[in-house]
Amino acid sequence: MAARPVSDRWRVTSRRPVDLSARDASAKTGAPGDKDATKAHTATLRARLAELQAKLYAEGSRSLLVVLQAMDAGGKDGTIRAVFEGVNPQGVKVVSFKAPTPEELAHDFLWRVHAQVPSDGDITVFNRSHYEDVLVVRVHDLVPEAVWRGRYARIRAFEELLHAEGTTIVKIMLHISAEEQKERLQERIDNPEKRWKFNPADLSERHHWDAYQEAYGEALGQTTARHAPWYVVPADRNWYRNWAVLQILVDTLEQMNPQFPPAAEGAEDAVVV
Amino acid sequence: MAARPVSDRWRVTSRRPVDLSARDASAKTGAPGDKDATKAHTATLRARLAELQAKLYAEGSRSLLVVLQAMDAGGKDGTIRAVFEGVNPQGVKVVSFKAPTPEELAHDFLWRVHAQVPSDGDITVFNRSHYEDVLVVRVHDLVPEAVWRGRYARIRAFEELLHAEGTTIVKIMLHISAEEQKERLQERIDNPEKRWKFNPADLSERHHWDAYQEAYGEALGQTTARHAPWYVVPADRNWYRNWAVLQILVDTLEQMNPQFPPAAEGAEDAVVV
Repeated sequence: MAARPVSDRWRVTSRRPVDLSARDASAKTGAPGDKDATKAHTATLRARLAELQAKLYAEGSRSLLVVLQAMDAGGKDGTIRAVFEGVNPQGVKVVSFKAPTPEELAHDFLWRVHAQVPSDGDITVFNRSHYEDVLVVRVHDLVPEAVWRGRYARIRAFEELLHAEGTTIVKIMLHISAEEQKERLQERIDNPEKRWKFNPADLSERHHWDAYQEAYGEALGQTTARHAPWYVVPADRNWYRNWAVLQILVDTLEQMNPQFPPAAEGAEDAVVV
Repeated sequence: MAARPVSDRWRVTSRRPVDLSARDASAKTGAPGDKDATKAHTATLRARLAELQAKLYAEGSRSLLVVLQAMDAGGKDGTIRAVFEGVNPQGVKVVSFKAPTPEELAHDFLWRVHAQVPSDGDITVFNRSHYEDVLVVRVHDLVPEAVWRGRYARIRAFEELLHAEGTTIVKIMLHISAEEQKERLQERIDNPEKRWKFNPADLSERHHWDAYQEAYGEALGQTTARHAPWYVVPADRNWYRNWAVLQILVDTLEQMNPQFPPAAEGAEDAVVV
């Protein structure tokens, strides 16, 4: 039997709600060493990701969807930068979902998401996603409970469709502690270079911390699946988080095992004149 | 008066057809030194590009469109990889235009292109573009001459629209020699690792070399403009090409001079609890 992939450690494997308060957001378990050693391994994984992405793109028949979710200041932007810098931007697409527009609201909640799923050969990263429709929408009572609760099944069916048609899906929640969020928001305020990032609405959202954690916990359990697993990555420490996310992506792509396509018939004898 | 930007050297400034045969595709004029010195300067420019892109993205009110054209094996893919690796993929989008689909053909030639222009804050790179509609379409007589000839004015008007609404446009032709193309295509055939890239159609296209060069020359002149300039970059040497393209992008972004946006009012006194 093959060894279990390193990333199995963070995988959600049960339908039961995940109790995020019981998970240490500053954990560094499983890291290949201290901060410096882990950063060195991260660089190796980044190079490996670039190789695997090049093959996936060349193969051109399957795709990878990476869903990234986190609380405010959870590190989504920083993760995308740290993980994908160095990977060929041709073939990697980042889609940020903001508050829906009137046109988007005039459609079902998966409409705008479906339009952005990866093409064959591509890796697409969702910075926020259709999961907001069972998170912020739930916390702020934007639709009745029966509607958001029904969305778990809608999401499962949607992701089964993507999987069946050639898209591999990984879903990653960057898990930070309330204390870490406080420090990061305060840093945005205190550092003039970062102050433009500060959104006063983040302060009122912070009052809903427990409600968000509960909504996350239930959504993770309800929508994790063998073909579309959730991973909860301890994210208080950026160096551990970056290493863990890269490990998840490399494990996933190695499982996919993309290959350069065969050459056109007779190509090896061709002579250019 | 400010010094002329380095990239002015490659800029097309006249409506007259460009005589590509008179331009040395292996030129290295203006390079900051030999190959090693130029590569070192390229790394500096890449870091500067990353800084400027971060500001453009944060500013969120203007965008940059980079149109990349070249003959087959001209190095478009390699240029994108070399120039944009290391830049935050959030905010950089690469769009590759292939042979149009039936739905695309059922619309005007700018329809599919317009749908892909950059959002505020973004850099979008067109790998091939609407210029194919005055290049391959002309060489293969896919529409009557009056139609493709009329497209020069259509393209000018379209690019004026984008410019007026906040999109800066740079258009870069990677100029290789027929001999260099021959070597690169043969390398794709002879190297088993690259053979999957080889497209037998490239051989028949190569017979139209002169017709393509003429079509390029006229299109460059007809559509270069102060607000949407064409640059012809000598591209037989990859190291010179990468340096030149980065120089063009950095000069363009420095001219745009993007700024981090101001903080929300009262943000500096906020306390996170």
